Amino acid sequence: MTSQESDSLVLSSDPLHPANLIPELCRSFYQLGWVTGTGGGICIRVGDKVYIAPSGVQKERIEPKHIFVLPYPQAPASPHTDRVFLRRPALNLKESACTPLFWNSFDLRNASSCIHTHSQHAVMATLLWTGPVFKISHQMIKGVRIAGTGIALSYLDTLELPIIENTPNEEDLKDSMAEAMIKYPNAPGVLVRRHGVYVWGNDWEKAKTQTECLDYLFEIGVKMKLAGLPTVLNE
Amino acid sequence: MTSQESDSLVLSSDPLHPANLIPELCRSFYQLGWVTGTGGGICIRVGDKVYIAPSGVQKERIEPKHIFVLPYPQAPASPHTDRVFLRRPALNLKESACTPLFWNSFDLRNASSCIHTHSQHAVMATLLWTGPVFKISHQMIKGVRIAGTGIALSYLDTLELPIIENTPNEEDLKDSMAEAMIKYPNAPGVLVRRHGVYVWGNDWEKAKTQTECLDYLFEIGVKMKLAGLPTVLNE
Amino acid sequence: MTSQESDSLVLSSDPLHPANLIPELCRSFYQLGWVTGTGGGICIRVGDKVYIAPSGVQKERIEPKHIFVLPYPQAPASPHTDRVFLRRPALNLKESACTPLFWNSFDLRNASSCIHTHSQHAVMATLLWTGPVFKISHQMIKGVRIAGTGIALSYLDTLELPIIENTPNEEDLKDSMAEAMIKYPNAPGVLVRRHGVYVWGNDWEKAKTQTECLDYLFEIGVKMKLAGLPTVLNE
Amino acid sequence: MTSQESDSLVLSSDPLHPANLIPELCRSFYQLGWVTGTGGGICIRVGDKVYIAPSGVQKERIEPKHIFVLPYPQAPASPHTDRVFLRRPALNLKESACTPLFWNSFDLRNASSCIHTHSQHAVMATLLWTGPVFKISHQMIKGVRIAGTGIALSYLDTLELPIIENTPNEEDLKDSMAEAMIKYPNAPGVLVRRHGVYVWGNDWEKAKTQTECLDYLFEIGVKMKLAGLPTVLNE
Repeated sequence: MTSQESDSLVLSSDPLHPANLIPELCRSFYQLGWVTGTGGGICIRVGDKVYIAPSGVQKERIEPKHIFVLPYPQAPASPHTDRVFLRRPALNLKESACTPLFWNSFDLRNASSCIHTHSQHAVMATLLWTGPVFKISHQMIKGVRIAGTGIALSYLDTLELPIIENTPNEEDLKDSMAEAMIKYPNAPGVLVRRHGVYVWGNDWEKAKTQTECLDYLFEIGVKMKLAGLPTVLNE
Repeated sequence: MTSQESDSLVLSSDPLHPANLIPELCRSFYQLGWVTGTGGGICIRVGDKVYIAPSGVQKERIEPKHIFVLPYPQAPASPHTDRVFLRRPALNLKESACTPLFWNSFDLRNASSCIHTHSQHAVMATLLWTGPVFKISHQMIKGVRIAGTGIALSYLDTLELPIIENTPNEEDLKDSMAEAMIKYPNAPGVLVRRHGVYVWGNDWEKAKTQTECLDYLFEIGVKMKLAGLPTVLNE
Repeated sequence: MTSQESDSLVLSSDPLHPANLIPELCRSFYQLGWVTGTGGGICIRVGDKVYIAPSGVQKERIEPKHIFVLPYPQAPASPHTDRVFLRRPALNLKESACTPLFWNSFDLRNASSCIHTHSQHAVMATLLWTGPVFKISHQMIKGVRIAGTGIALSYLDTLELPIIENTPNEEDLKDSMAEAMIKYPNAPGVLVRRHGVYVWGNDWEKAKTQTECLDYLFEIGVKMKLAGLPTVLNE
Repeated sequence: MTSQESDSLVLSSDPLHPANLIPELCRSFYQLGWVTGTGGGICIRVGDKVYIAPSGVQKERIEPKHIFVLPYPQAPASPHTDRVFLRRPALNLKESACTPLFWNSFDLRNASSCIHTHSQHAVMATLLWTGPVFKISHQMIKGVRIAGTGIALSYLDTLELPIIENTPNEEDLKDSMAEAMIKYPNAPGVLVRRHGVYVWGNDWEKAKTQTECLDYLFEIGVKMKLAGLPTVLNE
């Protein structure tokens, strides 16, 4: 394990450097109610480096110096153990519990960015769709790509997003999330019941805009359900 | 077709120049939830030039250099083909799929600005008003002008907005939107079922304030419907 | 009638000067959804001068140079006619249609500031309270003063706010608003059915904080009604 | 009693100094709807000094010079009387009515920061949970610590928060709040029926993130109740 301090990995004057983007995006996610109370976050992979915000901190107050950097790929390892870092913050910060889940999006979808929100729209969707999948059709679906990294869906497609059951420890979701991604190979994200959602994309822009689209669909789907309107046509 | 790069068309120190206004307004529309996930936008026409934001980008992060400039009028042409540009951004950006719909507002109403939102208030209105028209009376209706470009409506008028059915490709809405505008010559906008709304005005200020008024009316109309209150009096 | 241009009345480096405060407060009210689509506004009276924002403009984009200044008191006059100005903006701006209503708060309550919002919470309250008065008890009522300018209400008091019927022209509300203020001498504001609310105070801070409290009470009252909860206890 | 003016206690160039943090946090709380209309607030204790915002002011406009500083501990005293100050603002500002309630969190939980909000989510929770306790399970509960200052709760724990009845004067809640804290030793906060909530933590970050988590839980709990969903599983 490398514990070497390498500030140069996170210090840049480029506002689009991942170590600058992650704090900026987390501030924006806070405004949207996605990462309230330290929950949620985003990772960005650029080539063989993965930039991740720390766990358990106020997401709207992250600074570049707080960012962890990990190499990609990592040697095969079970969760919790033997993870390798290119940079750990000097401060007493914990690595993100989402790391193994973000890794699923890299390994199984070749994504370069993954976002996790605790949005209440996502959580309410998992409560009103009581089965293993959230489905909606004839809404703003074309903003989402097949599998998150493929071509765009059409207005005529029905969006299906698997819902997995929550566990007390975030990292223990790794296997059930991977299973759901394999079972639903076209799904651009995975909902976690009573918890939130994971969404990924080919880069941070696509991960973010797809998260916005999906959150919009969760929100309007919940409104429709509560108003007694059907959320899938022509079934 | 002109592909000439003409940065001078979009570089100005005047904050009210269309190429500066469009990014600023899109940031504000993002805060309102109107253009989430790359959807929606605004065009501004000044004399014989039309300024339009690109398609498929994060609307809250547009910069002046991303703006397309088209001449007005254009030679008659079918959608998708032979559109002429005064400026295309150097970057690999796509022209807005809304262009033919914005053009309807110029050709049929002599408008100078047109706004497209995916506001959930608009979408919910198209779900709860299941027929071809959204109607509301005895609310903040006087903020809207007859036909969008005429004199102001009165508190005693009933607002009627046509609702057209959505299509998978935005540009394919051109004809049905035009038909609705001809059938409802006083309508200041057109709703698209399960999609959003188009609103226009004599300038960007009037297009924007009328979009705000209409969005307010969609929102309160939806609240009233869900609370079992009548949305039109004295019918 | 004075039409003299007197920019010195509205140009000040003091952020608390009314001509600087009004634009700042209107930006904040826009964020709250109180003045969307050019509606609503605020006036501030300092001694014998009244500062008012223009009518029909985007309230979040007002600048100090747009502010009207009127003397107080004015000679008795019917609405619409013979109003005297100390300053009219050079631009082609219309005086606020709220002027005679703001004047009610000065004449009948000796207020120094009055706020008008189109908040949907206020409008929904006037739809769910179908009679001539909005009533609520056992909520955050102590943030409101008796008559708007007297001592603070207690948690044990029941708030009563008269509701008057709307008219097509704002200035025609003057008489019915005055009647309601006389009939309900303790009311800190007046609701206008299907339109909004007028709230006043001894200075702009108190007008603003009381508007916030009342808007909070409209919002929670509407939520309670829709949830089937009683809004007044011990009646 | 000390009335000595000691500006040095509140003037610092460090943005994390309590006298700088309190105004910044109150602006943020205003955006969240927690401190509208002068209500609510936050105190921060550092060692033997307690920093508190004044009462009855616009919380989003507080400046460092408005902050009160009190020594901790204080000599035993009944509420209202004999409170000792290290600094009182020069302006005519009233000390916070929350002071005795904030003190409960110091004395009974050894907290270093306490937040009071009037959030409508908290108030609605106290109306829909009509008994003496708010309960929720299987949600984002692990963001909250046992007793507010202990170890984190688990996803499998049921959160219980006592609800006390409101009184006309805030300071009169001191005894019933203390009783509830003793009766529910694991509770990380106390709800006040028809009024709001008090939440504390080991420092301002933890008080703030726990308030966010609890507010999130009140909001989702209210949504679930109104949708007819059970808020506690496996009872």
